[in-house]
Amino acid sequence: MQKPFKRIAIYGQPRSYDRHDFNEALQGLKKFLQKLNVDLFIEKETAGLLKDQDHPIVELDQLRKCCDLLIVVGGDGNMLSAGRIAAAIDIPVVGINRGRLGFLTDILPSELENKLRNILEGHYQEEKRFLLSASVQSDNTVLSKSDALNDVVLLASKVAHMIQFEIFINQQLVLNQRADGLIIATPTGSTAYALSGGGPILHPELDVIVLVPVSPHTLSSRPIVVDANSEITIKLNPTQITPACLSCDGQAPIALDSDHHIVIRKKSEKLRLIHPLDYNYYETLRSKLGWQAKYGA
Amino acid sequence: MQKPFKRIAIYGQPRSYDRHDFNEALQGLKKFLQKLNVDLFIEKETAGLLKDQDHPIVELDQLRKCCDLLIVVGGDGNMLSAGRIAAAIDIPVVGINRGRLGFLTDILPSELENKLRNILEGHYQEEKRFLLSASVQSDNTVLSKSDALNDVVLLASKVAHMIQFEIFINQQLVLNQRADGLIIATPTGSTAYALSGGGPILHPELDVIVLVPVSPHTLSSRPIVVDANSEITIKLNPTQITPACLSCDGQAPIALDSDHHIVIRKKSEKLRLIHPLDYNYYETLRSKLGWQAKYGA
Amino acid sequence: MQKPFKRIAIYGQPRSYDRHDFNEALQGLKKFLQKLNVDLFIEKETAGLLKDQDHPIVELDQLRKCCDLLIVVGGDGNMLSAGRIAAAIDIPVVGINRGRLGFLTDILPSELENKLRNILEGHYQEEKRFLLSASVQSDNTVLSKSDALNDVVLLASKVAHMIQFEIFINQQLVLNQRADGLIIATPTGSTAYALSGGGPILHPELDVIVLVPVSPHTLSSRPIVVDANSEITIKLNPTQITPACLSCDGQAPIALDSDHHIVIRKKSEKLRLIHPLDYNYYETLRSKLGWQAKYGA
Amino acid sequence: MQKPFKRIAIYGQPRSYDRHDFNEALQGLKKFLQKLNVDLFIEKETAGLLKDQDHPIVELDQLRKCCDLLIVVGGDGNMLSAGRIAAAIDIPVVGINRGRLGFLTDILPSELENKLRNILEGHYQEEKRFLLSASVQSDNTVLSKSDALNDVVLLASKVAHMIQFEIFINQQLVLNQRADGLIIATPTGSTAYALSGGGPILHPELDVIVLVPVSPHTLSSRPIVVDANSEITIKLNPTQITPACLSCDGQAPIALDSDHHIVIRKKSEKLRLIHPLDYNYYETLRSKLGWQAKYGA
Repeated sequence: MQKPFKRIAIYGQPRSYDRHDFNEALQGLKKFLQKLNVDLFIEKETAGLLKDQDHPIVELDQLRKCCDLLIVVGGDGNMLSAGRIAAAIDIPVVGINRGRLGFLTDILPSELENKLRNILEGHYQEEKRFLLSASVQSDNTVLSKSDALNDVVLLASKVAHMIQFEIFINQQLVLNQRADGLIIATPTGSTAYALSGGGPILHPELDVIVLVPVSPHTLSSRPIVVDANSEITIKLNPTQITPACLSCDGQAPIALDSDHHIVIRKKSEKLRLIHPLDYNYYETLRSKLGWQAKYGA
Repeated sequence: MQKPFKRIAIYGQPRSYDRHDFNEALQGLKKFLQKLNVDLFIEKETAGLLKDQDHPIVELDQLRKCCDLLIVVGGDGNMLSAGRIAAAIDIPVVGINRGRLGFLTDILPSELENKLRNILEGHYQEEKRFLLSASVQSDNTVLSKSDALNDVVLLASKVAHMIQFEIFINQQLVLNQRADGLIIATPTGSTAYALSGGGPILHPELDVIVLVPVSPHTLSSRPIVVDANSEITIKLNPTQITPACLSCDGQAPIALDSDHHIVIRKKSEKLRLIHPLDYNYYETLRSKLGWQAKYGA
Repeated sequence: MQKPFKRIAIYGQPRSYDRHDFNEALQGLKKFLQKLNVDLFIEKETAGLLKDQDHPIVELDQLRKCCDLLIVVGGDGNMLSAGRIAAAIDIPVVGINRGRLGFLTDILPSELENKLRNILEGHYQEEKRFLLSASVQSDNTVLSKSDALNDVVLLASKVAHMIQFEIFINQQLVLNQRADGLIIATPTGSTAYALSGGGPILHPELDVIVLVPVSPHTLSSRPIVVDANSEITIKLNPTQITPACLSCDGQAPIALDSDHHIVIRKKSEKLRLIHPLDYNYYETLRSKLGWQAKYGA
Repeated sequence: MQKPFKRIAIYGQPRSYDRHDFNEALQGLKKFLQKLNVDLFIEKETAGLLKDQDHPIVELDQLRKCCDLLIVVGGDGNMLSAGRIAAAIDIPVVGINRGRLGFLTDILPSELENKLRNILEGHYQEEKRFLLSASVQSDNTVLSKSDALNDVVLLASKVAHMIQFEIFINQQLVLNQRADGLIIATPTGSTAYALSGGGPILHPELDVIVLVPVSPHTLSSRPIVVDANSEITIKLNPTQITPACLSCDGQAPIALDSDHHIVIRKKSEKLRLIHPLDYNYYETLRSKLGWQAKYGA
């Protein structure tokens, strides 16, 4: 048993299509926590949704001062936004999904009593997930920086156009690629966009990243798995006319000029992801991907 | 032997990176044709490039009145633009590539004497390639129409976002898909973007089309080959927020509203593609895809 | 409405693991048919299973004389064996699956009353499926011939070894391939082994076949779809040492010598497959492949 | 600079198709080494090929006593057989390929003077490659053991038949799979059979392995990358009738009974692979897979 969690913050933003179910899940969680002997904090935006005036309101990046656990309600999308901040301020996070399990949010609203209670009482496993930092540079000037828990994605800004770029790993040229784009995914992101693009599943405990070309023109292109501590540099073809852009975890894309290059490195801060003691990664895989656990015809 | 070609038009637009080589190829072709006993016409834009004042200038869609063959110089991109018009006005087309062979442009500048001459003298094979017509509709109103020799591509307008849509074939629901997009390709287009997306190669003589999902969220999605005479309807999920767009042969994309649907049908007019007598489709495949013709280790 | 079926034969062979369920399904069908005003015949092997002595016993290839419909009980495996014979003798076939739907056997034991009854009364759709004939030849001598409703599969006989072979379509060399093997599939077979090997789904109405390389050494190899009326010839590399073999629809493999070649052609006889009026190919696809029919997160 | 190599053994076995070129390469290497101030030893089988009586003959597994470097002539196949032994006895290995570069044999016969000489003089890089050990067990009895530098491959013994098996990683069930087979590959093997089966490229320095299903029946199956120190257990479905077998690095397969299971672990001994100082892994990838290094159309 580990130290119980006593000071707890709630965060959650609904998607447009699930506002009703979402509020129900949020209210259910609040009521559940109120019954327990914990200090409850509500994230600012979430407080608006909950119309809550009974608990202290706090901003995500200020959580460190008052809380020792952040509960994220929603799908993996919410977990990505909250997780990037939680990693930076070193707050552990647990996810409650509404309706169906996610890869990162592995407790259902119906499981608060038997799963979340145990976690709060100190019966849990903690898993570390690393993040990537992507900086857009021109010559040696850093123009912008962004973080990714799942993936850094380089894509043509123009629909149905290829871009051309060179990939370097630790200053060594890997290849000159023509493709719709390139996904650089962490193990956490390996079951997200990278998987749709043909990448392998990377076990979350691994310290590796995968580079997955998106619709590559060269048919012999394949995903490459490399050490997560590698420095990945992507140089756009300076003569290309198709504009390209960069997106971390599906956030608003950053437009790139043809003389820009992108440098991707592992961040030192990690996300502390809290799971129930009976959490099983392979069970999540089977459930999400429709794999069989039993023999059958 | 078939009827020789006597009235010939030249068309070609360089890409930004190959202006020099391109002009050389154009001038070479012009000189070659001037030596022969043919009537030479220059397409309007091409005449500007050639700085030509010696031959009648003609617009592509007016070729039918004066010419019996269109020679396209450049890569498959030029052939697509010219081919869509040539199909509509029923003018046969032959392609000269500069530097390396394309799937559609199968004569090299160095082969004018032994390949193009034979064609002009009536020694050639003619192949018919069909096109698709994609119309964007709202209720029963047609908002826009465009043609595709290669492919009709539906994609999220927002980089790294999935769209959701229903696919119907002859009014029958096939599936409800979440993906980056969908490629509907002709046999001609099956070796272009659809191939990078994981589609099969369709022999050019087949009267079929292939639907290739782009980075589908459902991992069991697969390319589906159906009769080219099917009516394909794609309905966007009316509640989705990610905007989508449509592009035919990589032309400027058409923005779609979430209440739009797309109807794709085969056009009745076909492209008449002229090849040398020794043209061999599989040889082109092997050369473009790096396949072996001989035994080796 | 079409002509009702009055003289009906039953065929079914259990797999080792489902003997009990299987007999139940067979007995249920027999009882159902006995209540109707039809002449019932039992295939020889099936009669042994049913311990039936009340109805005439008949061999599959003799059905033409006495019956106008064959009902196959079991999975797609049973349908393949019965289908190859039924096609040759021009008897229509309908399939009853035990437990879950197959691609070819699309009536459940629980649906006899509302689906099978309608079919027998003449309310059905008939679909034609073509077969392939594969002949193994040495010089111009035919050494063996076999039929395939699903696929003709060439594979290395030695586990984990590649074989090398040339593929010709209508006497034109396609490529020289090194791979574990090659699958040549009909549209019917496109959802079977060929799909696991990365092939596309071919709509059953199409008159095409697909060539799918199995674990090809050349990474740019792709499935190729060609006219079903093509003659496919596969020549083994005469100097190769790894032995190869050929299997049609997963039947016992035929060993090949390195001087053998295989010629594959479409058969003129077709399988007449009977479906309920509400049969929907895409519904079967969705159900078997886990595709969504409705919008969802 | 490292310690020069002074006592050197030569090993090489030709494939049937390249006996002539092979002997030439062997003789060339022997002559080259004779000119240098080194002690030369010839492996027993190789001595027969070379008809050599001038140098001591030694068996591969006895090399440790007399030699400090093993030079392997031939393709990656020879390197696999020699490498498994060299790893066990801790002798470094360098590979000379005849004709074209391999992934493991990265010096050409024409490069002896400028590459091999430097290596022998102590100018080289040493890379460690790990191996897997696969043991076939029944209950707790080990029936057989074999080593793999590239891959452990489980396959149906019967051509064109699927097998069914459960995969466990560190005693946790991953999934119950129906497939032609399963490849468990090291980073070294990730560019061999696993790559044809759809696996990712694993950088050779990584301490990971990849599980690649071969033609899986479940279309959502994907390659999984896990820690190389994991214990992988594969249990055959006890009720299955299709026989299965196991092959390490493509060696003669071991037949499996349906009550057998396979346990795969990383070996502690590693292969010491010697490269020229200018060796570049990505250059080998580009050359072997036909990837571009330069911009081009």
